[in-house]
Amino acid sequence: MSAVDGFRPLNETSLVEYIKATPSLSSILGDSDNFQIKEVGDGNLNFVYIVVSPSGSVVIKQALPYIRCIGESWPMTKERAYFEAVTLKEHGRLCPAHVPEVYHFDRLMSLIGMRYLKPPHIILRKGLIAGVEYPLHSEHMAEYMSRTLFYTSLLYTTTTEHKKRVAEFCGNVELCRLTEQVVFSDPYKVSEYNRWTSPHLDRDAEAVRDDNDLKLEVAQMKSKFCERAQALIHGDLHTGSVMVTQDSTQVIDPEFAFYGPMGFDIGAYLGNLILAFFAQDGHANEENDRKAYKRWILKTLGDTWNLFHQKFIALWDENKDGPGEAYLPQIYNNPDVQKLVQTKYIQDLFHDSLGFGSAKMIRRIVGVAHVEDFESITDASKRADCERKALNFGKMLMKKRRNFASIDEVITAIQEVDS
Amino acid sequence: MSAVDGFRPLNETSLVEYIKATPSLSSILGDSDNFQIKEVGDGNLNFVYIVVSPSGSVVIKQALPYIRCIGESWPMTKERAYFEAVTLKEHGRLCPAHVPEVYHFDRLMSLIGMRYLKPPHIILRKGLIAGVEYPLHSEHMAEYMSRTLFYTSLLYTTTTEHKKRVAEFCGNVELCRLTEQVVFSDPYKVSEYNRWTSPHLDRDAEAVRDDNDLKLEVAQMKSKFCERAQALIHGDLHTGSVMVTQDSTQVIDPEFAFYGPMGFDIGAYLGNLILAFFAQDGHANEENDRKAYKRWILKTLGDTWNLFHQKFIALWDENKDGPGEAYLPQIYNNPDVQKLVQTKYIQDLFHDSLGFGSAKMIRRIVGVAHVEDFESITDASKRADCERKALNFGKMLMKKRRNFASIDEVITAIQEVDS
Ligand SMILES: Nc1ncnc2c1ncn2[C@@H]1O[C@H](COP(=O)(O)OP(=O)(O)O)[C@@H](O)[C@H]1O
Ligand SMILES: Nc1ncnc2c1ncn2[C@@H]1O[C@H](COP(=O)(O)OP(=O)(O)O)[C@@H](O)[C@H]1O
Ligand SMILES: [Mg+2]
Ligand SMILES: [Mg+2]
Ligand SMILES: [Mg+2]
Ligand SMILES: [Mg+2]
Ligand SMILES: [Mg+2]
Repeated sequence: MSAVDGFRPLNETSLVEYIKATPSLSSILGDSDNFQIKEVGDGNLNFVYIVVSPSGSVVIKQALPYIRCIGESWPMTKERAYFEAVTLKEHGRLCPAHVPEVYHFDRLMSLIGMRYLKPPHIILRKGLIAGVEYPLHSEHMAEYMSRTLFYTSLLYTTTTEHKKRVAEFCGNVELCRLTEQVVFSDPYKVSEYNRWTSPHLDRDAEAVRDDNDLKLEVAQMKSKFCERAQALIHGDLHTGSVMVTQDSTQVIDPEFAFYGPMGFDIGAYLGNLILAFFAQDGHANEENDRKAYKRWILKTLGDTWNLFHQKFIALWDENKDGPGEAYLPQIYNNPDVQKLVQTKYIQDLFHDSLGFGSAKMIRRIVGVAHVEDFESITDASKRADCERKALNFGKMLMKKRRNFASIDEVITAIQEVDS
Repeated sequence: MSAVDGFRPLNETSLVEYIKATPSLSSILGDSDNFQIKEVGDGNLNFVYIVVSPSGSVVIKQALPYIRCIGESWPMTKERAYFEAVTLKEHGRLCPAHVPEVYHFDRLMSLIGMRYLKPPHIILRKGLIAGVEYPLHSEHMAEYMSRTLFYTSLLYTTTTEHKKRVAEFCGNVELCRLTEQVVFSDPYKVSEYNRWTSPHLDRDAEAVRDDNDLKLEVAQMKSKFCERAQALIHGDLHTGSVMVTQDSTQVIDPEFAFYGPMGFDIGAYLGNLILAFFAQDGHANEENDRKAYKRWILKTLGDTWNLFHQKFIALWDENKDGPGEAYLPQIYNNPDVQKLVQTKYIQDLFHDSLGFGSAKMIRRIVGVAHVEDFESITDASKRADCERKALNFGKMLMKKRRNFASIDEVITAIQEVDS
């Protein structure tokens, strides 16, 4: 790869030189040559280095112009780092408690320097597989989602500001196209990238491709994803994009960010929690039947949505005389109509979230990218049983999402499938 | 006004010099000094000159940095001329039979030179007031709307192209904001700009402001207008933006164009036809009771939608293996699912069109800009009766739009109100 455009992929050696030449990083890490560098990119797309020195620590994330887990055969713009950096900063401004600070961004190098989320921070998905409870987590996620989504929507911003930001994030089109392909298209057709637990789920995968009613609903969710610029969404908010400890929740990796439907973020998160739930039976053993943990996941599912709802409406009420141009005070500031429009808004958002959530579930079972929740179940037939339950639940939820009036009804439906 | 930025407002004198210095115009009009120039801007926003010489003719439209009918107290970007020119060219490429050719565009001067639509071309609204039937008109409008909307949507374009164009048209934000204000906001609150036939409609206007169910629905339409980038819409497709003869239909004045919901164009058009219908009783006299003409308007309403539907689906079928990324052939090319998704798409579009159409009706009766259909009824009490019927029909249609399964049902409802 040439450096003609100012870009060079770094490695553990060249990274040291880069840091020394970069004041915003060297000021944190100090003068010493004594850097410990570890590449930890367990994600699918990028390279991530933890750099620790006697005086401080940083995480360096660099995007290369292809998809890491597939290789140079699947090119992908490294400009995604720009949208990730802008979004980390913007979401960080709106919700500093739950987004790591950005120390440095180098657009030519597609390189972000950010706060190192130290141990015991781990990726939430790994905590869910290990069966660890996080008592504050639903409160934190609800806080993150309500603040980032509310403040970047027309409930808080002006049309002028909104259209300016929408236009800018149209530039992240390659990442949007990737989502379109792997979430909304490939699972519903024969694709070289698709895989599933075979032969166990061969007929299930085929049934997904042959399900006209399902494809009708997926088309609607895809249109919403492509056309509806509702808020600056994270775009990839699964449980692998969240790092946690008992009292901290940090959202990373918003490289898929753009102005899209809020339900895509909420649904990604809720859908991945439901996947974690259905994987639990595969992790149960004599020591731990996972029954209590399954109850905790369902409680977290319910609490996250309900707290989100509550916080989102509280932000709306607080800001009803604010700059947002969607619901002008002179029209909507009487308690009856305010209640009416809020109820309708949340109901639509709930159904969107269930639709996107189920699309995210389905694609993780019969599409290209799977989740460790299931992948770590080594017994294929046990894994297939878990996956089939999740898949069938996802299909039902996609088709019947509008019949659900509350998250409690969703939880009841999960329990029925599970019993 | 200074010429610092290269802009000067022209008048009938300076226009001659401008034309002589502009080859794309002088080549049409010839060398002669013998220009007949007439300013005919009867619209609300801009200056329009008809220029005729012995060798040819052109229309020159110039945007000034304010709203003409209000004056310099309501500034409005003259960049709107850029979006108008781009859209005239794009819609003209897609549907040359129904869009005047652009000969010249000068961005600094916010000036468009286009084909002069010669007499007997008149503004459709004037024809509707005069009671003139146009037998080919519904076919033409259906052709224009189906082609411009289909080809600029994700049914035909790629996501990459779509997002690029969406981003560009985000620049027309000032015009979008004007629509937000005058269509979706002002009529539902006290505003210095609102007016209505007073005192006759005082309580009707107040009822609009106090109708919570109506305001709930209007909020949803407004969100769709602001957030949904479905196609490159004209943005102001009322019966005053169409010029007609017995065998020609020409759509002008797309300065409000942006990527928005298709139903906004279709609804603007259908809603203005319904206004024309309800105005007819005010134009009836001993010579002409307008009964036959009212039937023709309703037939045109039905035919336009039904032909649009038919043509739009035909375009979809023809292009199902085309570049559009919304419904990939490998997923949607079996007759059953194709039928399923098309039916749902058209149903949603129909309900959107009714929602936007009713918003457009309401705002023309209690908002800032009225229509000549009613304004030309000199007897205030007669006018108020017509307007009240239209207003009540609009309110009902907004609230109950989802209960209508076909345009025939809408026509039946109009006839019921009218009898
Ligand atoms: N700020 C951080 N602090 C600690 N670890 C991090 C940080 N950012 C990323 N990581 C680690 O790197 C992994 C990959 O990062 P991520 O941003 O998800 O990259 P990708 O886009 O490739 O998925 C994460 O799963 C996490 O383990
Ligand atoms: N190409 C044209 N040929 C003939 N007359 C035109 C043409 N364009 C505009 N006009 C006349 O000028 C009027 C105003 O034009 P329009 O584009 O609607 O301006 P505005 O944006 O101010 O509403 C139209 O109603 C029509 O009478
Ligand atoms: Mg990641
Ligand atoms: Mg990532
Ligand atoms: Mg408000
Ligand atoms: Mg006009
Ligand atoms: Mg105009």
